[in-house]
Amino acid sequence: MDLTGCYKKVRKLTEDICAPLHTEDYVVQPVADVSPPKWHLGHTSWFFETFILKPYFMVYQEFDPQYNFVFNSYYETVGARVIRTDRGNLSRPTVTEIYKYREYVDEAMEKFLCAEPSKEVRELIILGLNHEEQHQELLYTDIKYILGHNPLFPAYSKDYVSPKQEVNPANKFIQMKEGIYEIGFAGEGFCFDNELSLHKVYLQPFEISPKLVTNREYLEFIDAGGYQDFRHWHAEGWDWVRKNHVTAPLYWHNIDGGWHYYTYAGLQAINWDDILCHINYFEASAYAAWKGMRLPTEFEWEASAGHFNWGKRWEWTESAYLPYPGFAKAPGAIGEYNGKFMVNQQVLRGASEVTSPGHSRVTYRNFFQTHLQWQFTGIRLAR
Amino acid sequence: MDLTGCYKKVRKLTEDICAPLHTEDYVVQPVADVSPPKWHLGHTSWFFETFILKPYFMVYQEFDPQYNFVFNSYYETVGARVIRTDRGNLSRPTVTEIYKYREYVDEAMEKFLCAEPSKEVRELIILGLNHEEQHQELLYTDIKYILGHNPLFPAYSKDYVSPKQEVNPANKFIQMKEGIYEIGFAGEGFCFDNELSLHKVYLQPFEISPKLVTNREYLEFIDAGGYQDFRHWHAEGWDWVRKNHVTAPLYWHNIDGGWHYYTYAGLQAINWDDILCHINYFEASAYAAWKGMRLPTEFEWEASAGHFNWGKRWEWTESAYLPYPGFAKAPGAIGEYNGKFMVNQQVLRGASEVTSPGHSRVTYRNFFQTHLQWQFTGIRLAR
Amino acid sequence: MDLTGCYKKVRKLTEDICAPLHTEDYVVQPVADVSPPKWHLGHTSWFFETFILKPYFMVYQEFDPQYNFVFNSYYETVGARVIRTDRGNLSRPTVTEIYKYREYVDEAMEKFLCAEPSKEVRELIILGLNHEEQHQELLYTDIKYILGHNPLFPAYSKDYVSPKQEVNPANKFIQMKEGIYEIGFAGEGFCFDNELSLHKVYLQPFEISPKLVTNREYLEFIDAGGYQDFRHWHAEGWDWVRKNHVTAPLYWHNIDGGWHYYTYAGLQAINWDDILCHINYFEASAYAAWKGMRLPTEFEWEASAGHFNWGKRWEWTESAYLPYPGFAKAPGAIGEYNGKFMVNQQVLRGASEVTSPGHSRVTYRNFFQTHLQWQFTGIRLAR
Amino acid sequence: MDLTGCYKKVRKLTEDICAPLHTEDYVVQPVADVSPPKWHLGHTSWFFETFILKPYFMVYQEFDPQYNFVFNSYYETVGARVIRTDRGNLSRPTVTEIYKYREYVDEAMEKFLCAEPSKEVRELIILGLNHEEQHQELLYTDIKYILGHNPLFPAYSKDYVSPKQEVNPANKFIQMKEGIYEIGFAGEGFCFDNELSLHKVYLQPFEISPKLVTNREYLEFIDAGGYQDFRHWHAEGWDWVRKNHVTAPLYWHNIDGGWHYYTYAGLQAINWDDILCHINYFEASAYAAWKGMRLPTEFEWEASAGHFNWGKRWEWTESAYLPYPGFAKAPGAIGEYNGKFMVNQQVLRGASEVTSPGHSRVTYRNFFQTHLQWQFTGIRLAR
Repeated sequence: MDLTGCYKKVRKLTEDICAPLHTEDYVVQPVADVSPPKWHLGHTSWFFETFILKPYFMVYQEFDPQYNFVFNSYYETVGARVIRTDRGNLSRPTVTEIYKYREYVDEAMEKFLCAEPSKEVRELIILGLNHEEQHQELLYTDIKYILGHNPLFPAYSKDYVSPKQEVNPANKFIQMKEGIYEIGFAGEGFCFDNELSLHKVYLQPFEISPKLVTNREYLEFIDAGGYQDFRHWHAEGWDWVRKNHVTAPLYWHNIDGGWHYYTYAGLQAINWDDILCHINYFEASAYAAWKGMRLPTEFEWEASAGHFNWGKRWEWTESAYLPYPGFAKAPGAIGEYNGKFMVNQQVLRGASEVTSPGHSRVTYRNFFQTHLQWQFTGIRLAR
Repeated sequence: MDLTGCYKKVRKLTEDICAPLHTEDYVVQPVADVSPPKWHLGHTSWFFETFILKPYFMVYQEFDPQYNFVFNSYYETVGARVIRTDRGNLSRPTVTEIYKYREYVDEAMEKFLCAEPSKEVRELIILGLNHEEQHQELLYTDIKYILGHNPLFPAYSKDYVSPKQEVNPANKFIQMKEGIYEIGFAGEGFCFDNELSLHKVYLQPFEISPKLVTNREYLEFIDAGGYQDFRHWHAEGWDWVRKNHVTAPLYWHNIDGGWHYYTYAGLQAINWDDILCHINYFEASAYAAWKGMRLPTEFEWEASAGHFNWGKRWEWTESAYLPYPGFAKAPGAIGEYNGKFMVNQQVLRGASEVTSPGHSRVTYRNFFQTHLQWQFTGIRLAR
Repeated sequence: MDLTGCYKKVRKLTEDICAPLHTEDYVVQPVADVSPPKWHLGHTSWFFETFILKPYFMVYQEFDPQYNFVFNSYYETVGARVIRTDRGNLSRPTVTEIYKYREYVDEAMEKFLCAEPSKEVRELIILGLNHEEQHQELLYTDIKYILGHNPLFPAYSKDYVSPKQEVNPANKFIQMKEGIYEIGFAGEGFCFDNELSLHKVYLQPFEISPKLVTNREYLEFIDAGGYQDFRHWHAEGWDWVRKNHVTAPLYWHNIDGGWHYYTYAGLQAINWDDILCHINYFEASAYAAWKGMRLPTEFEWEASAGHFNWGKRWEWTESAYLPYPGFAKAPGAIGEYNGKFMVNQQVLRGASEVTSPGHSRVTYRNFFQTHLQWQFTGIRLAR
Repeated sequence: MDLTGCYKKVRKLTEDICAPLHTEDYVVQPVADVSPPKWHLGHTSWFFETFILKPYFMVYQEFDPQYNFVFNSYYETVGARVIRTDRGNLSRPTVTEIYKYREYVDEAMEKFLCAEPSKEVRELIILGLNHEEQHQELLYTDIKYILGHNPLFPAYSKDYVSPKQEVNPANKFIQMKEGIYEIGFAGEGFCFDNELSLHKVYLQPFEISPKLVTNREYLEFIDAGGYQDFRHWHAEGWDWVRKNHVTAPLYWHNIDGGWHYYTYAGLQAINWDDILCHINYFEASAYAAWKGMRLPTEFEWEASAGHFNWGKRWEWTESAYLPYPGFAKAPGAIGEYNGKFMVNQQVLRGASEVTSPGHSRVTYRNFFQTHLQWQFTGIRLAR
């Protein structure tokens, strides 16, 4: 597909994701890690306005100079009169105004794309589209959080069904040999700077599971007292359990003795064959320890990913998020994209059921802080 | 006016106050002390449903049993499965649903009122209307906070003009004599339990100003370094100043060297003749100390209120909010109304420009915590 | 006794209170409200050095200029190079050095007193001695907190016995008539500025108990579920109960089903006839509400104090700590003594078993924040 | 040296480190990461009592059963009656009592060692000695923190001189070739479980500095505005800088325009040729980014350590603290030693000027959280 076609397709998908929402659902921010849907809509448009239209499209007139403050996610340089505020406290611009802003930016972008931009600018646009696809996934997870933390438990889609796991019938752990493996992105097409560059890694022999842990398997951990025994947990994980009185994954509710969970279809009895979801790194690691195993490293995962199905859950790895050899930040604001987060976060590999089509590849490195549960995360065991 | 007429009038005014809002403005809660407008709309309806319709109107069908949780402001008894959440995180029920709830309750109430309820129930309804009038004032102040903390500074009403002070031309302090004065509510009509009962108080001689402090007068305090000199402040007030880097009243912004403030008409240059507004008890007390004077007690205020104009600002007094002699809590939930707040709050007397018509009287005791600024508060000096 | 004699006696008592301590006990600060004993020893000496010796004794050489920072309790003006730190983090000056500082100041003071200081200076010295007597009481309460929060529960004095209550045999509530009473200090001798001046107060008729509540009586409140029923509590008190999971007074421990408490003699089974101690204002008020009564106001207390025994417990009153009519702050640092605390605190009347001899009088106004329990506080009921 | 000789030598060194302290210095805990010296003295003795004497020395009588609570650093299982408290709030046991405890344990250990314990027990004793050597280093750093945060800046040793760097005169970066390197402990003698086992790692070509960064070099970063430019920092590091208003390394003070620092000899003008000390991971990483370089990984460090001098500073690496391939926790409490900290910490390599003799080796993996500065940390650049 040509770039204009890609642009239209990606931009439309963002709006399609929001279609089932009421105006009020676009506004709230129940926790700091969740952004209001209307902020995502504005911020992804601001990206194209700021990095493409203003510097490269000479005839472009900025939609509203104040939007720069509202939709900039890098608050480092703020003017003297601006009031610092949280995204979820902003009723204005309204949803209608933000859709107008999107439409305005899209019209300008489509005109600009007719003029055959340079290769450098085309690459920036592709970065913008990948950026928007990341926000599409965040829209899905943030919408789930907003509706799933409302006491009325409204459905996002009555027809939602959790994806099934295609399991290797043999179900034996995959054996991987010791040796040098090549890790990192090397092909054509788009990748983020944190996937570069292709380099050699020496791996010891290991085994990795062809399947992800299910709700039924995780329930065994709960029923065995997993949340009450500090020996399975990192010290910091155990503090998290005790401080928050955690006894189950996010969205699980024990109602009158029976386990329920919130899905996009509303609150319902847990389907035990579902792939486990919404556990943080501490929980993933504690479960693995209880099983006498461990999580794979991100290098083990990438080296063996050709041997199993993936793409339903982001899979926690035992690897901290660190730069690859030779990693170099791009100059300017674009260079702030990944490098500055390379501390105290853990790598996740794979992709999830709400990852945008075409936005997953075997070298993709996702990363989150170890206490976060709101993504569609899962567990694959290694040993 | 008959009770049905009163009911309709009060209920309509609440909706009129919200008329200029966009849907998004109904949803947000920028700080804990501010409630989202849609919560006020629901809560005031819940009051009539819970205390009138459900116990006294036999044919009444509850609108939605889950609303009890969402709109109850006394969270003491919550069921086992409910998720604790903040009001500003709730996108549902939507604004449309809440207006339907109001309409449903109003229809039932109007039917119920046709049936000539007993005196006891009529008194409860009058309490509910007074309760709603308190929330009307909170709606005004919360809307100002929501719009005034948005970086776009949207106007609530382009035509808004700050009320003028009708000043006694002589402008001399009023002399009041030592002696016994009668304090508290004694007449016919409605009052809150905290105004009861009429009792004697002995006052020393005092003088009280016929006018409220203006923006110009308060600017002198700022320019004299009032916010930098700990000697004017209570120890707790000084901590508040330093911790929050306070240098001016709420809504004041110094832009490029010139003072502006946010009013319902938007951000504009300060009108220096306006009555000072939006200062907390610490600021009121520090200003009075800097002038070598003090704030009046609530008893001095009530004893002398016949001699000056009041009703534009809630006026901070030097009195803590404590029970009057013989104060007795009503049994049940209604009894929680006032007594449980009688600690660590300060009394305000008078009424403000956004107080509902008929909801002010000389014995009315308003009360807030000493750090709060978001009400239409002012300063009257005594010595 | 002459002033030199008084000076020596007061200064010696401070050191006698500390005699049973080990060096380590002088150093720690388990919570912000408790000061290390060595800080009290230094601060009371600093008071005489700063307000008497440096301004009035020409030949005086300051002991150590850096002590001004360490022992000043009013941190408003700190130099550029000073590190802000908490009292309990300071191992230096050592206890030995601080005793040397006391000795040095005492020698200078005794020389200075030989020179017949002016009346004005003598009054400042008397203020300093009263200030030191306040710190003597704080030493007792802080030592109890330090030892009583150590898991080894060391005794301060093996022979300690809780004081008995001398109860009016008739045990009937005292009847007080409506009318004008005179409140405030009027005699010869020393008083604090907050007790001035004598003024008239009009009281409604009331009854007040001749005795303080005992441990046995308070246990009935506990056993009746007093800490589980929000109706007895102020809203802020109920928050305190829930947030801190409070189920009993400070120093009470339920060990294997039996109630124990820490006293100066160590951990022991509770003596049920003892006068209740170490409850905060919220608890005092909730107990009174549960009994269908209330706490007296400070004016009721002062007006009726001639009719009952007092002096074992500081007694919580229903009065907030506010200035008396005509209250005026002294100029300079001495003026910061009381006025700046007149907000969000509650008045206590009487004196406690650890109040210094001669440091109690019927007009004395003690004050603490409503959540504090570490003083020897008690409950006297009124209605 | 035989095990008894080693035992005596290590135990004596701990006491020698504390010899210059006053009793008060043993007690305080200015921040959570610093433990009071008396706690270190007790805890290291408790280790031998709990893991050697009680399980293996049949005739041993426990010194005091309550000490288990006070000196256990793993508070997971506490009895019902224990009061939770911070180490720095404990005045008891006193320093004298703790030295008695040490003497009691040492006498028992020396008797026990005469009886030729089994190889397994000897290994546990060696672990205990290595554990005590770790606490010796912590004693040095905690003592520096306690004295260096006292406004009197007392010296620990008047004769202290900062160690000099033996610099490779050529001073060129060391060139390291791409290829497989062996990492991890493989020899005879003691190592911690986190150093096991020897395994292959593939490294890309890199260069590493033969010297550590000096105060002079770091001052250039400060003077170039390094603490004011977010581009050099991790997002989390930048938050740390702004929240804490950081402008220089720990212990640096700008007094009247001149830079001073606190060393064991007291407060003095900075020696610019000294090796930089007391910077956290964020600062180390920001400095490297400002130089256009980076920190080495722990594998690069270990592979090249034979080519440069090390041992004066713990050197921050770009590696997160993670398990080596095949890492296995020992069963029981000993197994909690390292594994549970393998998240959100960064590896440091080398040893510092206060590391105990014989307690450093090229495979040693130290680890701390990224914001901590109180260790003797330094910067070695790589590219």
